[in-house]
Amino acid sequence: MRNIKLVIEYDGSDFHGWQRQAISPTVQAVLEHAISKMTGEKISLTGSGRTDAGVHALGQVANFHTSSDIPTVAFLKGLNSILPSSVAVKDVCEVPLDFHARYSAVAKEYIYHIQISCVRSPLWCRTAWLMPWDLDIGAMRDASRLLLGKHDFKCFQAAGSEVKTTVRQIVKCGIDLLPPSCFYPEDVKNLLFYIVADGFLKYMVRNIVGTLVEIGTGRYPASWISELLFSKDRKLAGKTAPARGLFLKRVYYRDPF
Amino acid sequence: MRNIKLVIEYDGSDFHGWQRQAISPTVQAVLEHAISKMTGEKISLTGSGRTDAGVHALGQVANFHTSSDIPTVAFLKGLNSILPSSVAVKDVCEVPLDFHARYSAVAKEYIYHIQISCVRSPLWCRTAWLMPWDLDIGAMRDASRLLLGKHDFKCFQAAGSEVKTTVRQIVKCGIDLLPPSCFYPEDVKNLLFYIVADGFLKYMVRNIVGTLVEIGTGRYPASWISELLFSKDRKLAGKTAPARGLFLKRVYYRDPF
Repeated sequence: MRNIKLVIEYDGSDFHGWQRQAISPTVQAVLEHAISKMTGEKISLTGSGRTDAGVHALGQVANFHTSSDIPTVAFLKGLNSILPSSVAVKDVCEVPLDFHARYSAVAKEYIYHIQISCVRSPLWCRTAWLMPWDLDIGAMRDASRLLLGKHDFKCFQAAGSEVKTTVRQIVKCGIDLLPPSCFYPEDVKNLLFYIVADGFLKYMVRNIVGTLVEIGTGRYPASWISELLFSKDRKLAGKTAPARGLFLKRVYYRDPF
Repeated sequence: MRNIKLVIEYDGSDFHGWQRQAISPTVQAVLEHAISKMTGEKISLTGSGRTDAGVHALGQVANFHTSSDIPTVAFLKGLNSILPSSVAVKDVCEVPLDFHARYSAVAKEYIYHIQISCVRSPLWCRTAWLMPWDLDIGAMRDASRLLLGKHDFKCFQAAGSEVKTTVRQIVKCGIDLLPPSCFYPEDVKNLLFYIVADGFLKYMVRNIVGTLVEIGTGRYPASWISELLFSKDRKLAGKTAPARGLFLKRVYYRDPF
C-alpha cells in the first residue's frame, strides 16, 4: 500500500465546493474519478479541508491510499490529461502511510483579492470581489493587526456551526497592495488580504474580510475588531464576503511531511 | 442626433468574436441589444475593428448614433446593469458626429500573455497561452526589435485574406517580464508581448507571437524575422498563437477625439 500526496490548483467558479456530493460537480469527486480511472481502484481522497462553493485553490492538499505502482510523475501527467481545465495537479509525491492531509496539517494560508474600480471588470470578476468605492487601507491594516494571536473567533464563525472550540491562532495576517499591472486601468487598486492560522472556522476568512471592508469604508473604527472578538456574537460582525475572491493558498505540514 | 463613444472590456472566452453573426453570441450583438433596450431605437454599433473568437479586450472602442437624450453617465450605469458579466462598458462620452471608431483610429495596442509553467494552471488558462518549456527572452526581444518600423507584414497575415496593402508601421513592440505575484508559484514566469501599430492584418499579432515563440525555443535565430519579412510567405512563419492570450488593450485617436 502507498500513500500519495497531491497539491491541487482549481478555479472554483463552476464547482459546488470541494466535498463530494450526490449530484453537483465537486472538486473531490472530479479528482477521485480521475485517480480511479488511472489505478482501476475505488479511491477515497482526503482533503486538507473543505472549500465552499466558488472558492478557489492555489495549493489545496489531498492524499489517497493505493496499491497501484504507477510512478508519481506518471500520476502528475496522467491526472492532468484526464482532469477538466478547471482543476490541475501541481505536484505529486509519495508520503509515509500515516500522513493525513487534514489531521497532519499544522497551518493554512488563505488570500482574498479585492479590486477597487468604479466600473466592474469582466476579466477579473471570477477571481476578485469588485468594489466601486475606495477603502482606507491604513485602517484595515490596523484592524487586521488586532486579529493576530490566539483568540476566540466565534464572532466570525458561520451561524449554526458546531465545533468543539472556536479558539484559533492567527500567526500572520495583513493587507498588500498589488503593484500596478498592464492588465488593469491606472485608477484600479488591487488589495490582497492574507492570513495564516492553525485552523479556520466555517466562513471565518470571508466573515473577517467582510468586517475589514466595513472598517475600510469608515463605518467602524479599527478597534471594532476587539469589540467583536470580545462579544463572540456573529450578528454584530460584518457580512460574509463573496466566495469568488477567496483562494486557499497553501497548507503547512510538520516535518517530515 | 448624438454620437456616443464607448470604451469596452470583455472576456472573449465565451464569444464568437466581436462581429455580429446570425446565431452565435458576439460582443457587438450583445452591446447593440443592451443599447437598443435603453434607447428604444434600433442601434448599429461600429467597432474599432473585429476581434477573433476567444480574444479579449481591455479597451475596445465603439460608437453609435442616437437621438436619445440619455446622459452619458446614465448610459454607463444602465448598460453595465443590462450587460452580461463577461462584458462591461468602462467609459462613455459624447463625441463629434464625424467620429468613427474604425476610420478615426490612428493606432492600436495589443498585449499577449504567455505563462511559462511546467504544469497547466486552471486559474489562468482562460487568459494566457500556457507553455511547459522555458523561452529565451533575450532572443525574443532581439527578434521583436526587427519588427519595428514600416514593413510589408504579408508573411504574418492569415492565408486567404484580401486587403489593399499589407504594409503596416509598428511604432512600439517588445516583451516584459511581469513581476512575481502571490497568485503564481515561484517557478512560474509571465511574459507579456506588447505591440502598437497603425493597423493590423488578420491574425497578425497571433502569427507574430507564434513566430517569436519558435525563436524563444531556440529553433530559429532572432534574424529569422528579417528573412520572413523579406519572403512575404505566410507558410514559412510560425504557427498562429491561441486566441486566449490576446488582449486588445487600447485604441488611439487623433486629437480632438
